[in-house]
Amino acid sequence: MTATQSRTGPLIALRYEAGALWALDQTRLPFEERELALRSAEEVAAAIRRLSIRGAPLIGVAAAYGVALELARDPDSYALERACDVLRNARPTAANLAWAVNRVEAAALAGGPGKRAAAALAEAIAIHAAEEHASVAMARNGADLLADARRIMTHCNTGALAAPGRGTALGVVAELADRGGLQNVIVTESRPLLQGARLTVYELSRLGIAHELIVDSAAAGLIADGAVDAVIVGCDRVAASGDVANKVGTYGLALAAHAAGIPFVVAGPTSTIDPSCTSGNLIEIEERDPDEVRTASGQILTIPGTSCRNPAFDITPARLLTALVTERGTVRPVSTESVAALLSR
Amino acid sequence: MTATQSRTGPLIALRYEAGALWALDQTRLPFEERELALRSAEEVAAAIRRLSIRGAPLIGVAAAYGVALELARDPDSYALERACDVLRNARPTAANLAWAVNRVEAAALAGGPGKRAAAALAEAIAIHAAEEHASVAMARNGADLLADARRIMTHCNTGALAAPGRGTALGVVAELADRGGLQNVIVTESRPLLQGARLTVYELSRLGIAHELIVDSAAAGLIADGAVDAVIVGCDRVAASGDVANKVGTYGLALAAHAAGIPFVVAGPTSTIDPSCTSGNLIEIEERDPDEVRTASGQILTIPGTSCRNPAFDITPARLLTALVTERGTVRPVSTESVAALLSR
Repeated sequence: MTATQSRTGPLIALRYEAGALWALDQTRLPFEERELALRSAEEVAAAIRRLSIRGAPLIGVAAAYGVALELARDPDSYALERACDVLRNARPTAANLAWAVNRVEAAALAGGPGKRAAAALAEAIAIHAAEEHASVAMARNGADLLADARRIMTHCNTGALAAPGRGTALGVVAELADRGGLQNVIVTESRPLLQGARLTVYELSRLGIAHELIVDSAAAGLIADGAVDAVIVGCDRVAASGDVANKVGTYGLALAAHAAGIPFVVAGPTSTIDPSCTSGNLIEIEERDPDEVRTASGQILTIPGTSCRNPAFDITPARLLTALVTERGTVRPVSTESVAALLSR
Repeated sequence: MTATQSRTGPLIALRYEAGALWALDQTRLPFEERELALRSAEEVAAAIRRLSIRGAPLIGVAAAYGVALELARDPDSYALERACDVLRNARPTAANLAWAVNRVEAAALAGGPGKRAAAALAEAIAIHAAEEHASVAMARNGADLLADARRIMTHCNTGALAAPGRGTALGVVAELADRGGLQNVIVTESRPLLQGARLTVYELSRLGIAHELIVDSAAAGLIADGAVDAVIVGCDRVAASGDVANKVGTYGLALAAHAAGIPFVVAGPTSTIDPSCTSGNLIEIEERDPDEVRTASGQILTIPGTSCRNPAFDITPARLLTALVTERGTVRPVSTESVAALLSR
């Protein structure tokens, strides 16, 4: 079920090989680099639920392979339906999950009874490749937008561990570093599961990009103090209105950036935009296990059994976004009209 | 140097007895209730530096006793000066520290060579008693102001562990609970040292007040969702302008409360107001050890050696305060004029 691989080249969070989906187990990073070999829809869904695989675009791609893996085991239409359900329901907030599953399901059905598995795998591979290309285009578009930014703040993890290729927001950061001039990245630790402290620090270290880690609640004061020139984050679901569901804490960063008059930029592929959702307040926010709040990296922090609330995401209204960066271009200002115009490109 | 006491009655964070200052070691709570016996200025200063004693009013009272303890060992004027210096410099941001030390120093000098120690101790006891009474008056004033609030959010720890008596903001919460009608308190964990998760949860549990713990970055989204009716926090230094230095993360809560149109209230005794400081941006913000960010309750969270920024406080501008609650009354709106009027009462 697991295999260990030492990695020195580009970071590959997910790869399909020899009839399995190999996923770097993100719950163990940065302390251990270990791949999971996933061979069924349920194994992929479980890896998504426990955040071994995370990041909206990445879980979309993983779920696409999950459907294909299941059909390779059992190509009948009931198995297809069940695989799609378990994967769509693995987590509720990211738009990419249902988007990718729906695409693979349609391709499998179009492939016909004898060719379902092959059609599903081909579609998963196509989605994977398209998202990789999208990350390169997003990085370029975002770096064009933030060409003058020398010091950037980012939240959670949005690099190669979150999206195939270069990532979303962290792909923009990496592109800015490649172009020269980027001096520093301030990384929020992103409690409760510390995707900033564990994953973004790991990615920036590998990339050789200077960074400083902060606790989440230091962000607003540092923004007010002029410590950064811009804030850039990813997204898990973008409503047709341009309202954004993203990692809990994003809304507070948007308020602080707005108050300080610096750009607040959201980056994500168009697969994260949900045109059927008209407003941010209609997006389902996942509430996760209270033990995530009661502990940090397994260490108990409070009185055992303390009641907790643990929303994994929050909603940032479109009016607080300076721009939405996608692979098809940059939307600015962000509104129902400008998002619709982007999607019709 | 240390002693263990089981406690069932009211929470006593600090007491002077038998020639020593007995302080509940707050670094060990909620997992262990252990008192430190402190017998010199340096021992008190060290306990303040490592946050065994914390909370602006409480460290003021502790420092006052620290001067008296030192004079009991060595009553000469050089010892007095040195004791005052080490205590004033234990931490930079809280106004109460220098305020209390200056008062005890003046009392000792006024006491004359033979009576310095006795005069200093009498002044420390007087400050302690006055701050206890102030906490009761603040609780009453704050509860009058927030009489309709059923669900309250608070940050860091501001109860009996932070200020003699009932505390500051958490004293208001306790008074609201005593009056009936308070339904729930949302407690931010308050990274990096988790004063919310460790200390506020402990105090509210002892008081039997319903509460829910959240990660700091969940606060803004919950405020926007209407999860609380008001936010109340303490303060470490209030400028003459009404700008407030308080636990890092306070400014973000103020922005979120302002955006949601709910009260954002700061509670503190007048000993926290620094009339010589004209503006928040003149307040020195303590930068603490990066290992606080790299770890949580001793558990490493990130790649060892990761660069960090660790400001312990941030500045909230007066315009974001709905009111400032003190023992002398409630200031609303908060401005240079209204703060000056309060101090002249």
